[in-house]
This record gives sequence, C-alpha cells and structure tokens, in this order.
Amino acid sequence: MTAGRFIALEGGEGAGKSTQARMLVQALEARGKQVVLTREPGGTSGAEAIRSLLLDPSGPGWLPRAEALLFAAARSDHVERLIRPALAAGQWVVCDRFLDSSRAYQGGGGGLDDADLLSLHSIGSENLLPDLTVLITVSPETATRRLDERDEGNSDAIGARSAEYHGKVAAAFEHLAQRDAARFAKVEGEGPPEVVHARLMRAIEPLL
Amino acid sequence: MTAGRFIALEGGEGAGKSTQARMLVQALEARGKQVVLTREPGGTSGAEAIRSLLLDPSGPGWLPRAEALLFAAARSDHVERLIRPALAAGQWVVCDRFLDSSRAYQGGGGGLDDADLLSLHSIGSENLLPDLTVLITVSPETATRRLDERDEGNSDAIGARSAEYHGKVAAAFEHLAQRDAARFAKVEGEGPPEVVHARLMRAIEPLL
Repeated sequence: MTAGRFIALEGGEGAGKSTQARMLVQALEARGKQVVLTREPGGTSGAEAIRSLLLDPSGPGWLPRAEALLFAAARSDHVERLIRPALAAGQWVVCDRFLDSSRAYQGGGGGLDDADLLSLHSIGSENLLPDLTVLITVSPETATRRLDERDEGNSDAIGARSAEYHGKVAAAFEHLAQRDAARFAKVEGEGPPEVVHARLMRAIEPLL
Repeated sequence: MTAGRFIALEGGEGAGKSTQARMLVQALEARGKQVVLTREPGGTSGAEAIRSLLLDPSGPGWLPRAEALLFAAARSDHVERLIRPALAAGQWVVCDRFLDSSRAYQGGGGGLDDADLLSLHSIGSENLLPDLTVLITVSPETATRRLDERDEGNSDAIGARSAEYHGKVAAAFEHLAQRDAARFAKVEGEGPPEVVHARLMRAIEPLL
C-alpha cells in the first residue's frame, strides 16, 4: 500500500476552490488513486453541525476568539475521525479549506495572533499539516464577479463581511504562502476552470 | 460604584451546584448586590447553541480534544458578551461551572494536558478567573442518589459517562483545589440545602 497524501485548497471567496477540488479528485481517480473529497468547516457529522453555527449563527454572530475556537473544534473532529484514518488507509485526501483559512480569516481578518491559531491546531489536531497547500489566487474583481454569479442569498456570515476584511484575508494568505514556500504552491485562478486545473495539476506533479 | 465579584460554583454531577447557586444569588441580593446568575456551558445565545451540541450531540459524540475546544468557544462567548460586561458594570456574577470544570472533565476525565486547557482559556477568554471558586464536594453515593431523584431521561452525554470517568473528575477537582488554595473554597455538600448554603456563605464571607 502506498502512503496517502493530503492536499488542501485555499483562497478567498470566489477563488474557485470547490470547482478545482472536484476536478482534482477526478484527475487523481483517473490515475488510480483512492481519493476522499472533503471540506472545512465540516466533513464529519459533528463538524458539519459546527459549520451551521459558524456560517448561520442565530444570535449576534461570533467574536474572533470564539470563532477561532469553533473552527479548531470542527477541524479536530474532522482530522481525528476522517482525515487521519483516510491517510492511514493509504487514501488521498483533497480538502476544500484547512488550517491556513483559519490563519488568514481569524488571524489576518479577525486580528488574532498567528501563534495562538497554531496553538489551537496543536491542541485540537496535533499539528497535522497538508503535504501540499494550493493557494488559488484571483483578483478582487474576478472574485466579486464569480460571487455575483452565484445565488444572491448564498452569502454566509463570513463571506458577507466587508471588502476591507476580505482584503486582509487575501494579504494574509499571500504572507503565509511566502513564509512557508515549501508547503505552499500558488496557482493563478484567473481564466476558465480547465485552464486553472491544468496549472493546478502541474503544481501537484511532485506528489505524483 | 463598587467593583463586581465573580464567584464560580464547581463540583461533579449531583453536588448541588445549581440549587446552591440560586440560594447564593438570593442571599447576595438580600444584601443589596446586583447579581447575574449564569451557567456553563451556556449563558449567552451563542454559548447555549454550543451547549446543545455538547450535551446532546447528533452524531457519535465528541472526542476529548474537540470537546475541550467547544467548551472553550462557549466560555469565550460567555466571558466576552456577559461576564466581563457585568463585572465592569459593578455587578456580581454567580456562575454554575466555569474553567475548572473543563480542567476536571476534559483534563482529569478526558486525559488532556492541563497546560493545554489553560492555553485554550488564555486564547479564548484572556485568562479571566473567578475571584472565588467554590468546590462543593459530596460522596459518590450522595451524588448517585441525587441524580436518581432527578428525571430518568435527564442525563446528558457527559453526565452519562462511566463511574470511572466521574471518579477521575472528582480527583481532578480535589487536586485543583489543593494546588490553588487561594482561589478555591471547599464546601461540604452533604446535608440539607439550607445547611450547605450556610457553609457556603461562611466561605464567601471574605468577599463581602
């Protein structure tokens, strides 16, 4: 049995992560890999219940500290119950968002210390990191256009935050990718999905 | 305006915390204090939603790491939105369970490191501690009898754990109270509520 690999797709709203995750899974399966497609927050029944609290809160919404703890709780359940067992069974895991989204959103956007977010990941998930983190980048204009093309009511409690917030998120993603270049691959997300997919497959070639 | 005080009541299932919390609030109000009675997990709309996930999970239940993060998330919302504002307004806060329950249950019972639980409290709630933590102790026999007198179906996902788990919780509470004797007051919980209440009032006398 060959070892499983863990690939996370990261980026802001409208970057095309979900589309690219599906296309990546198909390409890996075509090469004979057993692949689990999953997402955060979510991926297990417990984590999906936390996702509902995070993205559709019934009260006044979450302050950054509670939000970061909820993301870490969902990630812990997801890692312990789905991701680690899949990797141990030799499967590939493709995950739409992972730890770096917490660092970019609750850190860059919400103002929490990166060291605190890494502590939460250590306590919750014993520091599991992807073998490769693909950061898909698009211009703010492209992201806005793609989001406008989705259903109007589809924006969640985090996606609906200000352009200033999302600008900080994008800057934080760039910073993380620069600081940890060995774990990150940046993929240009502009253009048709097939073109982006071809770029992404070149980026993951070292894992194959 | 005099400063508010923060009193937490701790102990295992069936120790009499909720009854004693109500009696304490009445006694403080009779002395002219403005008092907020609250509980954990819960106390705010967000934290009560997390409470439902914790005590009545729809899936396979929570592993210790995710459980600790969910408690810390609920506590963060509770501290930032209710406890700190009440204390800042000069009110007294009486809370049925707080941080030391996480240390006793997820630490003592669940096997997590106490240092990790304190890190979660630092990140989530900036280390807010009660002015006084009252640990109410009863024998396992008394606890079992009191729980039997409650409705049968009332036991939640944590209360329903094994006697061995609850034994570890009780030992952890004792250990915490010994190690941090300046913040803790131990109150014997055996006997009628009025007798326990009188003991508790002697224990909080230094705050009055």
